[in-house]
Amino acid sequence: MREFDLIARIRERVASRGDVVLGIGDDAALLQVPDGMQLVVAMDTLNDGVHFPIGTAPGDIGWKALAVNLSDLAAMGAHPAWCTLSLSLPTPDRAWVDGFLDGFFALASEHDVALVGGDTTHGPLSVCVTAHGLVEPGRALRRDGARVGDDIWITGNVGDAAAALSLLQRSERVPDPLRARLDRPMPRIATGRALHGLAHACIDVSDGVLADLGHVCAASGVGARIDVDALPASEALCALSLDAGTRRQWQAAGGDDYELCFTTDPARRSELDATLSRLGVDASRIGVVVANPGIVAHDADGSAWQPSATGYVHFSD
Amino acid sequence: MREFDLIARIRERVASRGDVVLGIGDDAALLQVPDGMQLVVAMDTLNDGVHFPIGTAPGDIGWKALAVNLSDLAAMGAHPAWCTLSLSLPTPDRAWVDGFLDGFFALASEHDVALVGGDTTHGPLSVCVTAHGLVEPGRALRRDGARVGDDIWITGNVGDAAAALSLLQRSERVPDPLRARLDRPMPRIATGRALHGLAHACIDVSDGVLADLGHVCAASGVGARIDVDALPASEALCALSLDAGTRRQWQAAGGDDYELCFTTDPARRSELDATLSRLGVDASRIGVVVANPGIVAHDADGSAWQPSATGYVHFSD
Repeated sequence: MREFDLIARIRERVASRGDVVLGIGDDAALLQVPDGMQLVVAMDTLNDGVHFPIGTAPGDIGWKALAVNLSDLAAMGAHPAWCTLSLSLPTPDRAWVDGFLDGFFALASEHDVALVGGDTTHGPLSVCVTAHGLVEPGRALRRDGARVGDDIWITGNVGDAAAALSLLQRSERVPDPLRARLDRPMPRIATGRALHGLAHACIDVSDGVLADLGHVCAASGVGARIDVDALPASEALCALSLDAGTRRQWQAAGGDDYELCFTTDPARRSELDATLSRLGVDASRIGVVVANPGIVAHDADGSAWQPSATGYVHFSD
Repeated sequence: MREFDLIARIRERVASRGDVVLGIGDDAALLQVPDGMQLVVAMDTLNDGVHFPIGTAPGDIGWKALAVNLSDLAAMGAHPAWCTLSLSLPTPDRAWVDGFLDGFFALASEHDVALVGGDTTHGPLSVCVTAHGLVEPGRALRRDGARVGDDIWITGNVGDAAAALSLLQRSERVPDPLRARLDRPMPRIATGRALHGLAHACIDVSDGVLADLGHVCAASGVGARIDVDALPASEALCALSLDAGTRRQWQAAGGDDYELCFTTDPARRSELDATLSRLGVDASRIGVVVANPGIVAHDADGSAWQPSATGYVHFSD
């Protein structure tokens, strides 16, 4: 399969949008941003064996490569619109590419995202996606708006992906619901849109709750107190009958959750409840924003708790 | 050097633009597209040992990763505006990163391009850039507008980069001007802008003149007749005293030139001359657009000429 066969194979599966003036097939894509909207741009790369386990199904890689980028748009409160894809492959393989595209386009069509360009190269397996979204001016959710006294919330539940990865690494059986959370994260687009006017700050949880909340606190010039036993756990995670230490570690510092962590005024809890109920989304109150910089974590008894590592570190000395 | 140190190192060198609402440091960048302008998006990845020779200086890799993307914007007739960068590194190395950024930002500042986001990951050396430009509606240069009877032009000269690569691969000395063309291509932004209203079709030459002109012909539903001895050669290339076969091969099918190949109405030659003179840019007329699909190449004597390979092929069965 030559490069241009591969591009043709991708191109024939691309869905259109009215605002794509020119998609795949020229030197660059030509896009019509609606007047008065701001452009939101996120770019994330997944490398084989680093961001997904070696041997991950191609459809799951395709899904996840787009999902992690849409999750960034969700955290900004943006509508997804377009994306570009750079796919590096060590060897051409029609079945692999078709599987990859199955996963990629399954998620793209759920959110009406048009693939408008990119490239295919020869190299170690790596997938880079740039996602473009749109947001009304002043409506973007940012990291730098958390205020002292704010409630801290997290959507859904956390720790499933870390559990799946840990079990995989120990060659233990991984329950399907946990593996699905690792392989096919669901970007919280509708929730991000609904948090406008409610959330003071927002981030998506990719590196672990403590690490990502740390970015919010640093950007906002505040700190946080977190109850690690308030972190919501899925039925599948609870069914593992973990010791508290392991569960807390996976939930607070595991990463790959792609839930939204956000802060709101406690006076508006009922409004937030109503908004989330309308969407059918659960969220858990896990702590409070404080003036003192840094994050203090405690358990349900109020005893201080420290993770054995916070967040995924790509490079260390 | 941890990921966040690396991001901080990049962030402190970023230049600003008035239309960057929010740059590096949140989940995504927030950009203000001017009302009435269309967005132009190109994405290209460079992999170690595939798109640049192993051992290429980090500054040259940084320059080239941005240059190949800006060249795509040039071929569309767009103004560059913003870019995102995904940098995968096998090991953290401050000196390497600083050198890379020297080259990247040297070119970015020449064209007032703001780096607004991206990511850094652990993996084999690979650089992915997404470049964003702006163009007035209806002004974009495309591949699909070539007309039968059009002159075919190429800017500057071609073959230098292919010569440099070939000498390198044979461990021969590479003259500096040839190496510079391989390592630090100059995107033809001003020329692309000036071709509005003159060029019927345009492409940048990355895969070789014949291969890229072939894309223009295919998109336009036409063919081309090319005089390979009309392909312009630099003084440095001429100084190599090549046999005609090698020179033609490098010039017509070598790639990595990043010149613009475009077609115009022959009735407007003097207007084109005046436009290019004003810019101080040379262009050579290398052939004519014909109705018959495919490209027929001949030499100065009119004898048919065939390359031994056309263009760079990323994958082959």
